Amino acid sequence: MKIIVFGGDGFCGWPCALNLSAKGHEVCIVDNLSRRNIDTELECDSLTPIQPIGKRLEAWKEVSGQTIRFMNINIAEEYHRLLNLLNDYEPDSVIHYAEQRAAPYSMKSSKERRYTVNNNLNATNNILSAIVESERDIHVLHLGTMGVYGYGTVGAVIPEGYLRINIANPDGESSEKEILYPADPGSIYHMTKTQDALFFYFYNKNYGLRITDLHQGIVWGTDTDQTGRDERLINRFDYDGDYGTVLNRFLVESAVGHPLTVYGTGGQTRAFIHIQDSVRCVELAMAHPPKKGDRVHIYNQMTETHRLIDLANKVSELTGATIDFIENPRKEAEKNELKVSNECFLNIGLDPITLKDNLMVEVVDVARRYKNRVDLSKIPPQSQWVPNKETKEKVAAC
Amino acid sequence: MKIIVFGGDGFCGWPCALNLSAKGHEVCIVDNLSRRNIDTELECDSLTPIQPIGKRLEAWKEVSGQTIRFMNINIAEEYHRLLNLLNDYEPDSVIHYAEQRAAPYSMKSSKERRYTVNNNLNATNNILSAIVESERDIHVLHLGTMGVYGYGTVGAVIPEGYLRINIANPDGESSEKEILYPADPGSIYHMTKTQDALFFYFYNKNYGLRITDLHQGIVWGTDTDQTGRDERLINRFDYDGDYGTVLNRFLVESAVGHPLTVYGTGGQTRAFIHIQDSVRCVELAMAHPPKKGDRVHIYNQMTETHRLIDLANKVSELTGATIDFIENPRKEAEKNELKVSNECFLNIGLDPITLKDNLMVEVVDVARRYKNRVDLSKIPPQSQWVPNKETKEKVAAC
Repeated sequence: MKIIVFGGDGFCGWPCALNLSAKGHEVCIVDNLSRRNIDTELECDSLTPIQPIGKRLEAWKEVSGQTIRFMNINIAEEYHRLLNLLNDYEPDSVIHYAEQRAAPYSMKSSKERRYTVNNNLNATNNILSAIVESERDIHVLHLGTMGVYGYGTVGAVIPEGYLRINIANPDGESSEKEILYPADPGSIYHMTKTQDALFFYFYNKNYGLRITDLHQGIVWGTDTDQTGRDERLINRFDYDGDYGTVLNRFLVESAVGHPLTVYGTGGQTRAFIHIQDSVRCVELAMAHPPKKGDRVHIYNQMTETHRLIDLANKVSELTGATIDFIENPRKEAEKNELKVSNECFLNIGLDPITLKDNLMVEVVDVARRYKNRVDLSKIPPQSQWVPNKETKEKVAAC
Repeated sequence: MKIIVFGGDGFCGWPCALNLSAKGHEVCIVDNLSRRNIDTELECDSLTPIQPIGKRLEAWKEVSGQTIRFMNINIAEEYHRLLNLLNDYEPDSVIHYAEQRAAPYSMKSSKERRYTVNNNLNATNNILSAIVESERDIHVLHLGTMGVYGYGTVGAVIPEGYLRINIANPDGESSEKEILYPADPGSIYHMTKTQDALFFYFYNKNYGLRITDLHQGIVWGTDTDQTGRDERLINRFDYDGDYGTVLNRFLVESAVGHPLTVYGTGGQTRAFIHIQDSVRCVELAMAHPPKKGDRVHIYNQMTETHRLIDLANKVSELTGATIDFIENPRKEAEKNELKVSNECFLNIGLDPITLKDNLMVEVVDVARRYKNRVDLSKIPPQSQWVPNKETKEKVAAC
């Protein structure tokens, strides 16, 4: 198959591109390197020494014999270069990772709010609009987030994308209807993903586009079978307060002797998936595309849920790290339950990697190997969900 | 009160700005004149000879003694001019009409799809983000559309914005929850309004913004108490296949001896509101703002529903016009029921104008007065919901 990976230089996109190339697919990475530029802006860097995309692709060619094509296109802005690529390259599937993906970054200030909205929504709309204009039958796979569901707002198991409800009619009867699961975003970033879902709903309904939306949990781990084959292929690893996701952050903290930073009580429950399973899920979903006429396929791309305090305790037991409870920068419930269905992936062959598989040790090893690269000042949360808390509280008290 | 009307040069924004000025409010219109530029692009013009915004405001000053300020800002792009305006002008309320508002235009091609998405979503996000950054407590009123609900997908009366549902828990119990009414947009334009609803939901939830979202029906009529006071104040009137809304289009067709163009069977039921009631509703909603801490207020801004074929028959009886059934350019059900609650407005004092009030005759009079300005070639639908129908059908048959 011919595949374009939009955002193929990023944390999930890069190992995904390598995995598909290793499986014999023809892969083209499209990326404007925005994630590297945000590192520059935040004065942060990946824990692991990632190579420039050109060096990465040379190394991959050397190691695997496979060529991955690369194009630097800002798909949120350069619509016609995107359209020309679809027409020239003729992909069977495109995988869409090309969005600003950190909730804390999206909450910093108006600059980041506006960038996240403008980039994410125009990127998605441009891909869909270009596919309609190209008149090609291309399967779109999108990396969404479990966060579109909100956290634990209902007691039930979170189904995959759709919810069957009864609506009471005025005559006392009721009719059954399946709706997109009610969105309850917790950040500007998550909001853009709930808005993406409406793009997918409409482009599928009106133009018949074949779309799979993957609601991914928090990704942990760093290397996959392919990125581990050569140090030049190493995947990025974020540990900072903006881009570092919770379990990876704990593991780095433990490696450098920093207390584990638990926000609030740690009673929040989240869904998780290992990076190796993340790329495997995308491969599986690509191999099981929607048929012409199908509604949007929505899969929950996660393998397990954990309370954050339980995770911190596990990491503490494993490594001896201490735990610090710090003020929660987010606006969220102190604790929540989260039960999630991931039957779609289990049905098409996913054999989940879980925390039991001892891969945490591997991550701690990576973190120890590169611990001289850690800037401790970048670990605390840098963004507050409620800006100028004091001002706001004064207003509320009036 | 000090009020900014974003999009205050348009069909609904202009009479709204005059109405609020006439009621003693201090009004500033912000508009980039995009609607006039789209006239240029489509080689169309308002049936009525609207004056440039400068002339309009001079005339208003002459007639009423009131000054309305005007600024040409593209709020989707010029964020800092928008922010500066909020800080300098210090409005109590802002009214947001600054969106591309024609469903057929939004469906023409990728250019219009992309413009509608980029303009509408960035305009809304910039207003909300600038209010957060200004730290001012400004009430936002937004003109949405009844189209966010979809048409007749459930038998029940469409409530105002929220739907109470029961979600079955795995243990057999069920829990009650109030959700945003499930969105079912019928065009790219309508889709952007369903995405707007998620902006409002999140900015209200996280930043406490006070927001009223007005889900408006199809507006008909042209003049209001204020625009009728001088010909230089006349409101725009669209009759073309892109911007002309259905009842106004019928009335113009009858005035120029053109058959009434009914799409499909005319079995579609739609919600309607007269332009005079539209400006009155905005005034009422502004006078009844959400309190700090309230969720987003959502009102259905409509006064009656009609099947389109019934409307065509009414106009035919009134004027003697014949009826032509033409192929429906839209992708929609042949017929639907539509029952809508508008209790919120009735409760705060709206006394609805309806078709029974003989205002249709007034519109036909306006149309007859300016009928030499009508370009008959612009009346048929110019946009198809399904592009290149033959190609698509071939693909579907494979």
